[in-house]
Amino acid sequence: MSDADSAQVDSSQADLSQPDPRRVSDLRTPALVVDQTAFDANCAAMDAVRPGTELRPHVKAFKSTALAQRLADRAHTAFCAATPAEIEGMVAAGLHHDLLLANESLDVARLGRLDAPITVAVDSDPTLDAAIDGGVRRVLIDIDVGLPRCGCDIDTGTRLAERARAAGLEVRGVMGYEGHLMMVTDRNKRIHKVGKAMAILADAHDRIGGDIVSGGGTGTFDTNTWCTEIQAGSYTLMDTHYDGLDLPFNPALYVVATVISINAKGWVVADAGLKALGMDHGDPTWTGPGAEGEVLFCSDEHITIAPANLADHKVGDRIMLVPGHVDPTVARHQQMWVVNGLPVADAEVVDRWPINLRHW
Amino acid sequence: MSDADSAQVDSSQADLSQPDPRRVSDLRTPALVVDQTAFDANCAAMDAVRPGTELRPHVKAFKSTALAQRLADRAHTAFCAATPAEIEGMVAAGLHHDLLLANESLDVARLGRLDAPITVAVDSDPTLDAAIDGGVRRVLIDIDVGLPRCGCDIDTGTRLAERARAAGLEVRGVMGYEGHLMMVTDRNKRIHKVGKAMAILADAHDRIGGDIVSGGGTGTFDTNTWCTEIQAGSYTLMDTHYDGLDLPFNPALYVVATVISINAKGWVVADAGLKALGMDHGDPTWTGPGAEGEVLFCSDEHITIAPANLADHKVGDRIMLVPGHVDPTVARHQQMWVVNGLPVADAEVVDRWPINLRHW
Repeated sequence: MSDADSAQVDSSQADLSQPDPRRVSDLRTPALVVDQTAFDANCAAMDAVRPGTELRPHVKAFKSTALAQRLADRAHTAFCAATPAEIEGMVAAGLHHDLLLANESLDVARLGRLDAPITVAVDSDPTLDAAIDGGVRRVLIDIDVGLPRCGCDIDTGTRLAERARAAGLEVRGVMGYEGHLMMVTDRNKRIHKVGKAMAILADAHDRIGGDIVSGGGTGTFDTNTWCTEIQAGSYTLMDTHYDGLDLPFNPALYVVATVISINAKGWVVADAGLKALGMDHGDPTWTGPGAEGEVLFCSDEHITIAPANLADHKVGDRIMLVPGHVDPTVARHQQMWVVNGLPVADAEVVDRWPINLRHW
Repeated sequence: MSDADSAQVDSSQADLSQPDPRRVSDLRTPALVVDQTAFDANCAAMDAVRPGTELRPHVKAFKSTALAQRLADRAHTAFCAATPAEIEGMVAAGLHHDLLLANESLDVARLGRLDAPITVAVDSDPTLDAAIDGGVRRVLIDIDVGLPRCGCDIDTGTRLAERARAAGLEVRGVMGYEGHLMMVTDRNKRIHKVGKAMAILADAHDRIGGDIVSGGGTGTFDTNTWCTEIQAGSYTLMDTHYDGLDLPFNPALYVVATVISINAKGWVVADAGLKALGMDHGDPTWTGPGAEGEVLFCSDEHITIAPANLADHKVGDRIMLVPGHVDPTVARHQQMWVVNGLPVADAEVVDRWPINLRHW
């Protein structure tokens, strides 16, 4: 190993040593910031429809046990996750009342070793074998309801359930994710299409049994009335991708950036680029006081914006961006800073939520 | 603070505790893997044209001091970076012979405190003030050469250089990034356009002075003959985005994934999604043995592929993906695993390069 290796410097940790910031203007940028008022309102809107364990919050959206704890405090004590690392982190944080790996994995022996009741999704003999061999005691049968991703047909699911029970595992029920229907903008069409997808899941449940019918997401939290529990996480923080839908949730997550350059030809450059943002749903939206203009493009560490009034801006200003997609944006940061209200420069920072469920 | 906060579990570190993997098949997936043979060949191809300090490797592309050390071993002892955190990490690793923050920042007092010769780019009075006030002793004047991002006009640059020298700072020269020309596919057109952009930089250098004319990138490493040094990093690992150009570099970076689900309707699902990949240049390319088919889409933790021959694939197989964009892909991972040759399942893992220059 070279000197550079053995030094084992890890700037992943550097930002955590930043002295406690008091205001948004103290934050190193780019910074991920949560508007606690909007967050609380989003939680309340969800709880009015999906109280307690009728919601199984999906930690993949926010990857933070601190945020998960806020949901547990609101009586959502059963969680789901997309990766084994997310499950491990939830167990380590004591949030392991009822954890579901809502995804297929062959790397589940690491979960079978944990002292917590963990359920994993299976959709094939190899994934069921991995659960049995890995010491996992509970499974959910993942059914294909139309999204071209994981999930098996009902006959396969029924056979897997029999095999699992014969091996002494508890089959807790079925899950099916209608992810291809989250963005159907017309509410009635969405209800109709979700109903057809969920009819498949209901048939599977009739044959497979168990207490749980798990599915849904932020986009179908109220229209999916067929599931016993909804898997949703994005509703807590929201993003611009859901703007077209009739949802009672509002953006609560911002990337705060600093203006580092202004060009008289008509553009402003700030220090939040595509390494600080999930870009799969396109550019972020510039918002907040004075945010009139057009986002031109993002590069690695920059966003270039053409503002309506260039003279209104100066180097050093803080600006706010709403990400196009919450989940991958969160996964790029070490922490969320919490403020009451919009993260304008003088807004008070009231908390820090470590994003501690990252990687795999 | 809640229990969940105080637990301070950070799964960012979890993967680092994975027992030393011997083969690619031992790696937890998704895993970032470097083909050392291709990496070495890329380095050799660059060194033939840009030896020693004629190249200033840009660490933003690979964010790893272990990889940077390999370039320093090849006599590239001067580096540039895009963030203060990258500079801090390079100093901590002892790679601080000549470090350039090739970007504007108001947060440079943290660099002025370091015991290392650091140069920062400035393009305005506020960024120059930040350098002076922050104890930075060396600046490079960043000139606008046509990319709508940072950089000032020549008159402003000349005035800033005078101010900097009056304040006792060393003005080492000029930089200008012709990023808008990296992807001009026709080589002659590229040479012509780069020449026009660099004529601006040469004019600026005539008026501003200093030893350094810094610019370029992987796409113009040989066609930009106007600069005294080229800022390039992507050439080491490469990505599919550069495929259309006539460059002597080949992909050396792969995301290795595990097949977790197969659907008889015609698709295969593997466990590398958009949280493991930079998506701003589109989907990754499926490659390697048996890779015939079409990538359908990526979701957070999945890639869905329609293979030409479904029967050739089984749950548990390892597959290889070439990212569309190296820089943001690397920034999503904790480490690169190094193998000799393609990262097929039984390839031997010979080294681990921590990605320790992440975040800000």
